[in-house]
Amino acid sequence: MADTYRCVTLARFVDGLPGPDDFNIETRQVPEPGDGEVLVRNIYASLDPGGRTRLSGGVSYIPPLALGDVAGGFNIGQVVKSNNTGFSTGDLVVGAFGWSEMGLSNGRGYFAKIEDWDLPLSAWIGVLGIPGLTAYFGLKRVAGIGAGETALVTSAAGMVGATAAQIAKILGCRVIGVAGGSVKCAWLRDELGLDAVIDYKTAGDLSTAINETAPEGIDILFDNVGNRFVDAILPLMRLNGRIVVSGQIGDYNLATKDIHGIKNTRAFITHRVRMEGLVVFDDRPQFSAAQAEMAAWIKAGKLIYREKIYEGIECAPQAFRDMFEGTYFGRHLVRLAPEP
Amino acid sequence: MADTYRCVTLARFVDGLPGPDDFNIETRQVPEPGDGEVLVRNIYASLDPGGRTRLSGGVSYIPPLALGDVAGGFNIGQVVKSNNTGFSTGDLVVGAFGWSEMGLSNGRGYFAKIEDWDLPLSAWIGVLGIPGLTAYFGLKRVAGIGAGETALVTSAAGMVGATAAQIAKILGCRVIGVAGGSVKCAWLRDELGLDAVIDYKTAGDLSTAINETAPEGIDILFDNVGNRFVDAILPLMRLNGRIVVSGQIGDYNLATKDIHGIKNTRAFITHRVRMEGLVVFDDRPQFSAAQAEMAAWIKAGKLIYREKIYEGIECAPQAFRDMFEGTYFGRHLVRLAPEP
Repeated sequence: MADTYRCVTLARFVDGLPGPDDFNIETRQVPEPGDGEVLVRNIYASLDPGGRTRLSGGVSYIPPLALGDVAGGFNIGQVVKSNNTGFSTGDLVVGAFGWSEMGLSNGRGYFAKIEDWDLPLSAWIGVLGIPGLTAYFGLKRVAGIGAGETALVTSAAGMVGATAAQIAKILGCRVIGVAGGSVKCAWLRDELGLDAVIDYKTAGDLSTAINETAPEGIDILFDNVGNRFVDAILPLMRLNGRIVVSGQIGDYNLATKDIHGIKNTRAFITHRVRMEGLVVFDDRPQFSAAQAEMAAWIKAGKLIYREKIYEGIECAPQAFRDMFEGTYFGRHLVRLAPEP
Repeated sequence: MADTYRCVTLARFVDGLPGPDDFNIETRQVPEPGDGEVLVRNIYASLDPGGRTRLSGGVSYIPPLALGDVAGGFNIGQVVKSNNTGFSTGDLVVGAFGWSEMGLSNGRGYFAKIEDWDLPLSAWIGVLGIPGLTAYFGLKRVAGIGAGETALVTSAAGMVGATAAQIAKILGCRVIGVAGGSVKCAWLRDELGLDAVIDYKTAGDLSTAINETAPEGIDILFDNVGNRFVDAILPLMRLNGRIVVSGQIGDYNLATKDIHGIKNTRAFITHRVRMEGLVVFDDRPQFSAAQAEMAAWIKAGKLIYREKIYEGIECAPQAFRDMFEGTYFGRHLVRLAPEP
């Protein structure tokens, strides 16, 4: 094993779209695990839109990164040294070490062995990882989804959105996806089999387009985009409609003053709308049960996913920027080491 | 009994603040109740801020009034003729006949005999009526209020707000009231015993003022005002905070384009905030139990209320306007006939 490893750290607080100049690639000494600690070689690191919120130094519930901190993301890795009785050398694990070739864990927090269900390793950082679990608990716990409802998913070709759209279909809903561009929309329609797909880039007025597609109204808005879409869709919500605030990718890179202001709030009273956000770590005790249910859907061919894999840690900053610019879709991963 | 009665009807769709020119006072023939119907002489009619939403002809979940329809409000009345076995001449009832000296009911919908619990008759249209029930179910069902939480109530000197503030106190919360003007604030502090009161007219930046008063943050925002206040308070919400959208008195008289847009929505994710509106008629099956609990609080001196009573139906349009301009506070009623 080499004495050093590389990681990506925050070089300056980010204003607007993040890019390579905002990060440093540092070489660090591989640490020696202390009592109860586990040393991990990371195989994959994820690029997560939600990680953007931690790069600007502002106060949030999740503490912001300080300059020099390793930038965010989740990992799949393999234990290379363990002083923790719960983990052995060679174990495959999920963790939250960020964009880093190595990680050191005390065995607590988001750190767990991968149980082998004959699925590709990368599934554990995507469809069965934080994005997939966000879709699952957003629909099941937050929305309390029921068969026969109409669900609308924004950023439906993204990892969270595509998983949410398929789960809503599996659970018996009529599902409408909103995405940008004909390639994404064709995939949602032809591969995922959504009931309707709207290309917001060509649809003209979004409210009108949705209303034509779903004249019955929307029971569940699973939103990954942010205020502009929420505001446009609020007047279309049905009685007792639920808005799941899953992500705000359209707002993450904006200063508060530039964020679209939601005005159509009368629907909260007239239609008893409920809007609620989630951070899926609150559902941690139920992760295994959810992953088992989703794994069965994957094996049955009902739940599919796309991933884009970059090679090498030095790709992370530019790939993170590309993700916001919408060039690719699906889960964005960086491979840091070959799979064992 | 006279052959005719008076009622206030919508003369034109209202743009901005409603006033006397928007209504007609009509004289109509007293109807003969048909099979199963009940004829009521109204004793009180209420002026309700929420009734504003029905005056502009726009689409809402509650159907808007047509021109010539009797304008909104609830009533206390006495049965003068009944062809319904559930009601007898002389019964005191609550109903929703609007600003009208007489009402005709088929015995369904919001129409019920007043059970005698030794309380002033007008309590049944105020603290035990729709405003008080909105406060009760907004806190109990929508917010799921718990002892030890910090609750902030806006328009706290209004009928809904003052009831909500007192119920939150009774249920063991720290309660902060926001109101406009020193008279209202003194009443909230000295008579209602709230833990803190903020005069939004003199406090300067509302977020700063609230943060100084409640550095621990807000668990429950019980909002009667609308978007501007919600936006200012969102960043102060604690983890798992709940926003009860009870009323939007600050927005009812505005065109959508002029309504303040809510931008501070990041808290929905970071603090798992839940925002939900209510129309209290959804809780109708639980009204009696709620009224019994509140009646006990009133008798124990824990739940007090103010009312302003206007004399005669011709006062309703101007009094309705005055209510929005904030001259008086508490429940606004029009007395249409002497109490029996």
